[in-house]
Amino acid sequence: MKKLINDPKNVVTEAVGGFAIAHSDIVRAELDPVFVVRSDAPRAGKVGIVSGGGSGHEPLHAGFVGYGMLDAAVPGPVFTSPTPDPIVAATKAVDGGAGVLHIVKNYTGDVLNFETAADLAAADGIEVASVIVDDDVAVKDSLYTAGRRGVAGTVLVEKIAGAAAERGDDLAAVAAIATKVNSRVRTMGVALTACVVPHAGEPSFTLADDEIEIGIGIHGEPGRERIKLEPADAIVARLLGAVLDDMPFAAGEDALLLVNGMGGTPQVELYIVYRRAAEILAERGVTVARSLVGNFTTSLEMQGVSISVLKLDDELTALWDAPVQTAALRWGR
Amino acid sequence: MKKLINDPKNVVTEAVGGFAIAHSDIVRAELDPVFVVRSDAPRAGKVGIVSGGGSGHEPLHAGFVGYGMLDAAVPGPVFTSPTPDPIVAATKAVDGGAGVLHIVKNYTGDVLNFETAADLAAADGIEVASVIVDDDVAVKDSLYTAGRRGVAGTVLVEKIAGAAAERGDDLAAVAAIATKVNSRVRTMGVALTACVVPHAGEPSFTLADDEIEIGIGIHGEPGRERIKLEPADAIVARLLGAVLDDMPFAAGEDALLLVNGMGGTPQVELYIVYRRAAEILAERGVTVARSLVGNFTTSLEMQGVSISVLKLDDELTALWDAPVQTAALRWGR
Repeated sequence: MKKLINDPKNVVTEAVGGFAIAHSDIVRAELDPVFVVRSDAPRAGKVGIVSGGGSGHEPLHAGFVGYGMLDAAVPGPVFTSPTPDPIVAATKAVDGGAGVLHIVKNYTGDVLNFETAADLAAADGIEVASVIVDDDVAVKDSLYTAGRRGVAGTVLVEKIAGAAAERGDDLAAVAAIATKVNSRVRTMGVALTACVVPHAGEPSFTLADDEIEIGIGIHGEPGRERIKLEPADAIVARLLGAVLDDMPFAAGEDALLLVNGMGGTPQVELYIVYRRAAEILAERGVTVARSLVGNFTTSLEMQGVSISVLKLDDELTALWDAPVQTAALRWGR
Repeated sequence: MKKLINDPKNVVTEAVGGFAIAHSDIVRAELDPVFVVRSDAPRAGKVGIVSGGGSGHEPLHAGFVGYGMLDAAVPGPVFTSPTPDPIVAATKAVDGGAGVLHIVKNYTGDVLNFETAADLAAADGIEVASVIVDDDVAVKDSLYTAGRRGVAGTVLVEKIAGAAAERGDDLAAVAAIATKVNSRVRTMGVALTACVVPHAGEPSFTLADDEIEIGIGIHGEPGRERIKLEPADAIVARLLGAVLDDMPFAAGEDALLLVNGMGGTPQVELYIVYRRAAEILAERGVTVARSLVGNFTTSLEMQGVSISVLKLDDELTALWDAPVQTAALRWGR
C-alpha cells in the first residue's frame, strides 16, 4: 500500500481538518464528533440538508456543503457508515426551525444509522424527513444493501434538493423534490482496478490485467459480470444500455448526463466515455441538455467510471442551474 | 495497459471532441488542426491568451479556456508538444486586434514550437508576446528542458494573466503580469506510481512497492531522489521545504497554496497533504490567504502530488479573485 497518509487511523480527521482550512470561506469542521457544516449554519427559516456516509468517496459529501446544496456532511470511517451520534450533531447544527432533510445512500448501515439519528433528533423537537437514494441499476439486494445501491446520482439529488431549500421550499417540498430526482436518475459503473482501504492495507478485490468489472459498486462490491477489457465505446454501450433499459426515454426528452470518475481515471478517458454516451443519447433522439464530467463520487484511487442519466423537466433544469457554491461544484456566484 | 480508450491514436481527438460537447456553453473545438477555443473568440480589443502542450495533463490546458482565463488551448499528442501549425491557427482564432500572449511551459519542444508559431503569426501581422513558465524547483537542465520545468504553477499564471486580459490590460501589461506570477511561484512534486502513455502501452518508469520519486516531473521525468515511502507529513516537509528554500518568505507575507493531484490520487490524500503544508506555512508566520486543492496539472493516472506556493500581493490577490468561468475553475459567475 502506497498512500500519502500518516497513521491510517487518522485519515478522516486529517483530511477533514485540511478540507476545513482550505475552504474556510464556505465551511467549518467539527472534529468531536466529526462533521462538516456550512459556516453560516443554522440559517433561520431554511430547511437544512444533511448527507453523509463512509469516507473515500470524496468530494461526496463534504465537497458539496455550501450555498445551494448541503448544509452539513457526516463522513464516517473509510467505506464505513457514520454512527448516529455525529448525524444527530450535524442535524442539530443545521436546524433553523424549518426542519432537516437527510439524504441517505441506500446501504444498510447508512439507512439504520440515519434512521436512529432521525429518531433522536425528533425526540429533541427537530422535524426530520429522509430520502433514500438508490440509483444504481447494476444489482438488486446484496450483502450490503436491500434493494439497489445509492451511487453517483446522489450528487444530483443533493444539488437539486439544495436549490429547492435555498429558494425557501418547506421540508415536505424539498423532500418531494429529492424523491423526484431519485425516481428519475439511473447509474451504472465499471471498474478497471480495485482500491485499497487504508486500514485494510490490501485491495478489496482483484482483477486480472485484462479484466474489468461491469456494474461495480462504489465500495468495490461485485457488479453484474466480470469481462475482458473492451474498447471504451463498447463499455459505454453496456453501461448506458443498462441505464436506458431501466428508464426508457422518448425522443425529444431532455437528459442530464453525468460521467463520473471513480478517483483514479485520467480526465481524457472520462471525456472519451462522455463523447460516446452523448452520441448514443443523440442517436436515440434524447437531448443532452446538461452535462457534468469529473470525479464526484469516487472510490479512493479506483480506475473506472460511472454513467448517470437524469430525466430532466423544466423544474429540475431550473433548480440544477440555480447558483451553487461548494468546494466541488460552483456556479452563479 | 487497462484504459477507457478506443484506438490509442484517437485518444486526443476523441477526448477533445467529448470535452467540446460537454462544455459547449464555454468552448468550441477545432479538430483539423486540433485546438479548443472560447466560443466567443475573437473578442475585439481584448488580448488573447493561448497555452498548450502535450495532452495527458488535463484539465491543463483546455479545462482553463473560458471567461477570465485562456482564449485557446492547443493539446498535442499525449506528453508530446503540439506542432506550430495548430498553435498558429489558435493564435489567429483569438486575435482581436490587441495581440496574443503565449503561455508556454518550459520544455524544449514546447518552447521551439511556440517560437516558430509566434514567428509565423507575426508574419501574418499578429503581435505575439511569450512568457515561459518554469516553476519546478526540483531539477535544472535535463534531457527535456534547459533550465527548470514548467508544472502546476502554470495554472496560476494562466488564471491571473487571464484576469488581467479580461479587465482590458494591453499585451505588454498582460505579459508583465504573467512574468510576475512566474517569478513568484515555486513547485515541487512527488510520485507514488508511474503512468502509462496510451501509445506506449508500458509505464514510463518503475517504482518498487515501497519507493517514491521526490521531485518528479509531470511526464514522469526523474526528480531529485528516489526514497522509501514516508508518512505524508514527512513528504510534505521535503516538498515544501524545497519550495521555501528556493523562495523564502518573511513572516506576515501572504501565500496562495496549491496542492495539485497528479491524476490518480484520492482526494482525502490531497487534503492530508494540504493540512500539513498549511501548518508549516503558519509555523513560519506565512498567511495562507488563498488555497486551491485538486487535480489541475496531472500526469494521466499517476498517483502523487505537487505543492505550489505563490507569493501574493494585493494586485495578484485581486486578479486571482476576479471572476472565472472555465470547465475546471469557476467562480464569480
